[in-house]
Amino acid sequence: MKRDSQTPVELFDAAITGQRHAIGRLLSLVEQGGEAADAVSALTHEKSGDAMVIGITGPPGSGKSSLLSQLLKVIVAAGFRPAVIAVDPSSPLTGGAILGDRVRIDATDTATFIRSIATRGHSGGLALAVPGAVRVLDAVGFNPVIIETVGVGQVEVDVTASADTTIVVANPGTGDAVQANKAGLLEVADIFVVNKSDLPGSNDARRDLELMLDLSHMTGQEDSTGRRPPIIMANSLEGSGAAELWSAIVEHGEHLVATNQIDTRRAKRQLAELRSRVSDALLDALDNELASEQGADVVAALSDRRITPSEASSQIIDRVIRID
Amino acid sequence: MKRDSQTPVELFDAAITGQRHAIGRLLSLVEQGGEAADAVSALTHEKSGDAMVIGITGPPGSGKSSLLSQLLKVIVAAGFRPAVIAVDPSSPLTGGAILGDRVRIDATDTATFIRSIATRGHSGGLALAVPGAVRVLDAVGFNPVIIETVGVGQVEVDVTASADTTIVVANPGTGDAVQANKAGLLEVADIFVVNKSDLPGSNDARRDLELMLDLSHMTGQEDSTGRRPPIIMANSLEGSGAAELWSAIVEHGEHLVATNQIDTRRAKRQLAELRSRVSDALLDALDNELASEQGADVVAALSDRRITPSEASSQIIDRVIRID
Repeated sequence: MKRDSQTPVELFDAAITGQRHAIGRLLSLVEQGGEAADAVSALTHEKSGDAMVIGITGPPGSGKSSLLSQLLKVIVAAGFRPAVIAVDPSSPLTGGAILGDRVRIDATDTATFIRSIATRGHSGGLALAVPGAVRVLDAVGFNPVIIETVGVGQVEVDVTASADTTIVVANPGTGDAVQANKAGLLEVADIFVVNKSDLPGSNDARRDLELMLDLSHMTGQEDSTGRRPPIIMANSLEGSGAAELWSAIVEHGEHLVATNQIDTRRAKRQLAELRSRVSDALLDALDNELASEQGADVVAALSDRRITPSEASSQIIDRVIRID
Repeated sequence: MKRDSQTPVELFDAAITGQRHAIGRLLSLVEQGGEAADAVSALTHEKSGDAMVIGITGPPGSGKSSLLSQLLKVIVAAGFRPAVIAVDPSSPLTGGAILGDRVRIDATDTATFIRSIATRGHSGGLALAVPGAVRVLDAVGFNPVIIETVGVGQVEVDVTASADTTIVVANPGTGDAVQANKAGLLEVADIFVVNKSDLPGSNDARRDLELMLDLSHMTGQEDSTGRRPPIIMANSLEGSGAAELWSAIVEHGEHLVATNQIDTRRAKRQLAELRSRVSDALLDALDNELASEQGADVVAALSDRRITPSEASSQIIDRVIRID
């Protein structure tokens, strides 16, 4: 395999001394994928594993960015050096972010590094780009690494798979809890925040969440140690709730360590990334096969009803999968 | 390959004479997947291709089921024999439909066949079950076959890939157009319906849609023939709009035939189904490999940082993919 290793090594050496330009270039290489991304992964893999990885997600307009901005101040004041990866939602078909919910985070603090990553049309790209970016930021010394997503869908569930601690932000009176539940986000949440707690309906939102937690508890979806996710009431206009949220994050981190779940979660994460990486390669091999002359023959035979759907797939599978 | 062929053949013979129980059993076999599903596909594949396939989607509470109920009456009155496949959204993690938006369709008319299909936790299952179910209903003589989904997400985009004509239903004043746009649904819609047209905001909803169509027209996302999707105003309480919707569906069907797009769409659909089928098999092979002793060794070496992420994936890929 050709290794475009010169540049990544130099970039990495510069990045660990805190040079923002070099960090940015490493992240761009990771986002692009391919061999350069592999080289960056190889470099950063062995240096990573120290950072706490936090996922924060919630619907557009939940004031999540303001809350995150407050949280970053608390984290910096506590002596940490946080980095944020903001995942940009975009159309699954065009890859364009027509209504991109861009992050508006007040990050004048130079201790904080913020980077936006686009979804590029399918969550598969994110499944590799996000862990790769986390690894870079971890390896160059940021801690915690925060992954922010905007939405309550499958992308959010997939992305939170990269986090040690997942925070779900809901708004008063907008049915967010119901949406989050349907997307499966309640089941991956370690901490809930009801934001804009000054608005009418914030107690209803809290009650909705409590009810759903009761339900999920009854159906056995709670944390394997029986821990129930806390619900933090926050008001990012006043700045209230951010300190409580940080305490809850630290507490959850300690809980993960005390129950040995941190290792289980990280091993699972590594397996998930490996699976994404290999399944991308397999699907590429499949697409090459389908686009080949032999592949087109099989598709034509299927369309003309000369062969059945399962015969067609057997023929393609035989050509792609190794038979030991 | 063992073929459990006796029962499917008998069921199919009974199903084409209109026996509802037999049709239901065939659909259950398709939903279960595996060899029985393959046998049903083989039987129905060669008899199918006559039915018009219509996808109808929209957010929960859009009154889509009432509209569909009205539409079914219009279709039956026009001398057709429709069938409906209702896709049930469920949690991506548990597979449970805690807040399942069940269809409430008034289908006392015996000419109409209605069947619910669950998503089973991931859209991958649907990508096979839906085309399989369409094929059964088509082969036993239903026309049109209507696929109903509840939501505006990736599942809806995936499911509409099985349809000749896709209808997106939006509500006045709820930002549905924005949500649908973000999910990529606008780009796959052939017809829009603004439902509950008596409500304030219905003209705004229409204007939102027109604006987004203008935008997508400018960025080249319209139908390759330059056709712009019509927007139908409907009120399912009064029953208005259903006849107009049926006319628009028929017109779109004629447009597909006149422009030869019907063949292109169906060939694409068959390729997509074949790809789903093979990628399922490939991912199964991958999961078996990862769960094997050799797979576990690779994962352990990765976790211990003895090998890099790309080395780990190369080792797994080499074991799964055939190298010619």
